[in-house]
Amino acid sequence: NEIQCRAVEIENSVSPFISKKFELDDVIEAQQFDREILNHIFEVALDMEKIEKSSSKSQMLKGYLMATLFYEPSTRTRLSFESAMKRLGGEVLTTENAREFSSAAKGETLEDTIRTVEGYSDIIVMRHFESGAAKKAAATASIPIINAGDGPGQHPTQALLDVYTIQREIGKLDGIKVGLVGDLANGRTVRSLAYLLAKYKDVKIYFVSPDVVKMKDDIKDYLTSQDVKWEECDNLTEVASECDVVYQTRIQRERFGERIDLYEQARGKYIVDKNVLNVMQRHAVVMHPLPRLDEITIDVDEDPRAAYFRQAKNGLYIRMALVKLLLLGW
Amino acid sequence: NEIQCRAVEIENSVSPFISKKFELDDVIEAQQFDREILNHIFEVALDMEKIEKSSSKSQMLKGYLMATLFYEPSTRTRLSFESAMKRLGGEVLTTENAREFSSAAKGETLEDTIRTVEGYSDIIVMRHFESGAAKKAAATASIPIINAGDGPGQHPTQALLDVYTIQREIGKLDGIKVGLVGDLANGRTVRSLAYLLAKYKDVKIYFVSPDVVKMKDDIKDYLTSQDVKWEECDNLTEVASECDVVYQTRIQRERFGERIDLYEQARGKYIVDKNVLNVMQRHAVVMHPLPRLDEITIDVDEDPRAAYFRQAKNGLYIRMALVKLLLLGW
Amino acid sequence: NEIQCRAVEIENSVSPFISKKFELDDVIEAQQFDREILNHIFEVALDMEKIEKSSSKSQMLKGYLMATLFYEPSTRTRLSFESAMKRLGGEVLTTENAREFSSAAKGETLEDTIRTVEGYSDIIVMRHFESGAAKKAAATASIPIINAGDGPGQHPTQALLDVYTIQREIGKLDGIKVGLVGDLANGRTVRSLAYLLAKYKDVKIYFVSPDVVKMKDDIKDYLTSQDVKWEECDNLTEVASECDVVYQTRIQRERFGERIDLYEQARGKYIVDKNVLNVMQRHAVVMHPLPRLDEITIDVDEDPRAAYFRQAKNGLYIRMALVKLLLLGW
Repeated sequence: NEIQCRAVEIENSVSPFISKKFELDDVIEAQQFDREILNHIFEVALDMEKIEKSSSKSQMLKGYLMATLFYEPSTRTRLSFESAMKRLGGEVLTTENAREFSSAAKGETLEDTIRTVEGYSDIIVMRHFESGAAKKAAATASIPIINAGDGPGQHPTQALLDVYTIQREIGKLDGIKVGLVGDLANGRTVRSLAYLLAKYKDVKIYFVSPDVVKMKDDIKDYLTSQDVKWEECDNLTEVASECDVVYQTRIQRERFGERIDLYEQARGKYIVDKNVLNVMQRHAVVMHPLPRLDEITIDVDEDPRAAYFRQAKNGLYIRMALVKLLLLGW
Repeated sequence: NEIQCRAVEIENSVSPFISKKFELDDVIEAQQFDREILNHIFEVALDMEKIEKSSSKSQMLKGYLMATLFYEPSTRTRLSFESAMKRLGGEVLTTENAREFSSAAKGETLEDTIRTVEGYSDIIVMRHFESGAAKKAAATASIPIINAGDGPGQHPTQALLDVYTIQREIGKLDGIKVGLVGDLANGRTVRSLAYLLAKYKDVKIYFVSPDVVKMKDDIKDYLTSQDVKWEECDNLTEVASECDVVYQTRIQRERFGERIDLYEQARGKYIVDKNVLNVMQRHAVVMHPLPRLDEITIDVDEDPRAAYFRQAKNGLYIRMALVKLLLLGW
Repeated sequence: NEIQCRAVEIENSVSPFISKKFELDDVIEAQQFDREILNHIFEVALDMEKIEKSSSKSQMLKGYLMATLFYEPSTRTRLSFESAMKRLGGEVLTTENAREFSSAAKGETLEDTIRTVEGYSDIIVMRHFESGAAKKAAATASIPIINAGDGPGQHPTQALLDVYTIQREIGKLDGIKVGLVGDLANGRTVRSLAYLLAKYKDVKIYFVSPDVVKMKDDIKDYLTSQDVKWEECDNLTEVASECDVVYQTRIQRERFGERIDLYEQARGKYIVDKNVLNVMQRHAVVMHPLPRLDEITIDVDEDPRAAYFRQAKNGLYIRMALVKLLLLGW
């Protein structure tokens, strides 16, 4: 007449009681994060790194269900979120073709779709082709929404993982010098990164880009208003020798329409290669949001200062941290 | 030096031994369900509602594998089944493009596909573009098949969740008055619902639809043969004031071919808006199988009598119940 | 009033310590397997068969994550791998449209994609349209890669499950007679099978195929060099009466381009039907890699010698075995 049982999920059953609620209900835009909350998230991301590397797997999110609602394909981002959820013991409902699912196909509003999907899941990760879609979804949903990119708008988890990578690689954010290289006009990555770097002290930013894709004035004005020093520069080698971080980006062909000539010209202008590496400081790193074409030559990969694959991996830790915080709190 | 633990998965380990087999091997069409079995299923669905809302998640279906074999996309239905399975601790193999998989692509028969997939899973949820496909699959498979819609044919789980929603919202099924509104000619939802309502006593059905999409004679004749009172009516307000349930449906544009003029005319005719709400009784509800366009105005959403998102959620409970019953029995 | 506990998942927690490393880091091509390792793998596959059939489900791979990276669709193969992983308690990240993901879409190299995906998973199953892609991926990745077919190249798990099926059905591999029938020029299946059969003693192979799709000389020369007896033959009935295994394959229409006439002619030439069954020995079996069209008539299905659906199921056991071996060792 004995009951046989086993010890399970102690972390899961305990944490809801001792945890403090996360300050954010949703993750929609980089503007939600101040310096203090960033630091706390980075501490959790570091814990996640330990959890992911340890042999005893976490079941922290067991019983929780994420829906990935992607209105445009982005396999890299989707996989990273789904991996984050599953590494913590959670489960995933995948919709790769959400565009077919609703508005576009039968005329359903995003709000109606969200109201349905929130009934089937505990957290929604959404990628959308329209700026502002994530905010609209969050206003409707009673469960957390994470913006995984909404058109030309925001991609806040990318911005966070970039800052986290600088912290992990360089060891600090105050006082760093960062060179933003490549397509500064169209890349939402570099725009968000510049925005977040403004929260730290004594940061210096260099913009290195072909004329047709220069950083826009709104970001420059914002940096100036926040007393962040910035400078436009057309000599990548010079910048590379000064910087802690050379952040290279892909020139986006799709933005050039039929002007292939302009694209080809812009594309070849600033390449990070062995010559650039040779002038970089020992502690400095090369970053890139990926995918890359040939704006970083592959012989750079083997150099320990090539941080872009570690950066991609940091995306996993940041997303593990955010999913954990939104579902379980601190 | 004691080890603390708690009993887990008792339901899982015990239920196989004490459970009674479910009367059905497969869920193929609404005709399989009589009043008594519906009542029993609704009790299980209510249990599922409690399980889903409780903080301690069920692992009842741990180790079981569902394959969702969708020959045409229906993300809403697929997500709902996959959520049902995962909410009970089960796992899912997804095939969103099953059409590519077999017949259409290389000429494999449905039977051969089923014989292969049943080797990889414990239950198959199938959506198909051809009427009768689910029955054919069930005849081949030695594991349970659930029909998630086969062309113009059946969509039995939708019919069940509709009846369940009336039971949950109104508290009874005998003696209710239901207004079926909109596209009654093409909507398999309203046809199945009318069919199932005939199993209850003293039901009165009102048909409110544009002339081009009126309810077909087969259902009318069936209702008459079952002594169910029905009436065609062209005044939605009048019907709404009488009914316990106003069941609105979308006019399906794809059925009108090039006659966009007829579609536009039919589409605007019967709209559920604040004016309709105003004449409805306090206990009455508005239902809709979703997705909706503008046949229910969005200002209706905030009224407690707007039951359509609760109805969508009930789809989860009904599917949890059916999957549980088919795999574990009562 | 004491609660007794028991240790669970002993296999999981213990095996890493007592297990011996698998000889292979990746599964890329049939040439990696010698007779001894095949025998050992087949023993593990037999264990997997027992695990899959037992009511107590295994959690051997709990906490492990497989990424299925499919650059061309192959739902059958993908489902089989995902089922294998989930039957052992592991989890899966699915990418059905990996082609969009990387190179083809934005110009990312396969190597860069692999470096990213290996950060999110513990093992990658890859299907690619280019011969040699799997080898390239394995050279890059620090986690195991399984080749699930790379263009006209290799599909080693199919070859293994074919040999395993012969072992399971006939009870031996030495001394068997195998008739390879159908499209011998284009089918990588029969080519790999012939290659693996050469590892066993006193094997005799008959090639039965329309002239336009005859077995190529490289395999014939290889068999000759390995002292394997082979013969071309145009009488299927005669061969069937001699053989232990009749291995039928589909004539691949896509290889004939606009010469539909040649295709139709080739396609009808060698059909396995009741007449062929009638001359086959009692212990002999019919195999087919599936999908089949009408090269095996459906009235053959009910004969116990029709082994092709059991063969498909064996794919599950072989893949369970390989995933287990690559992740946990022997």
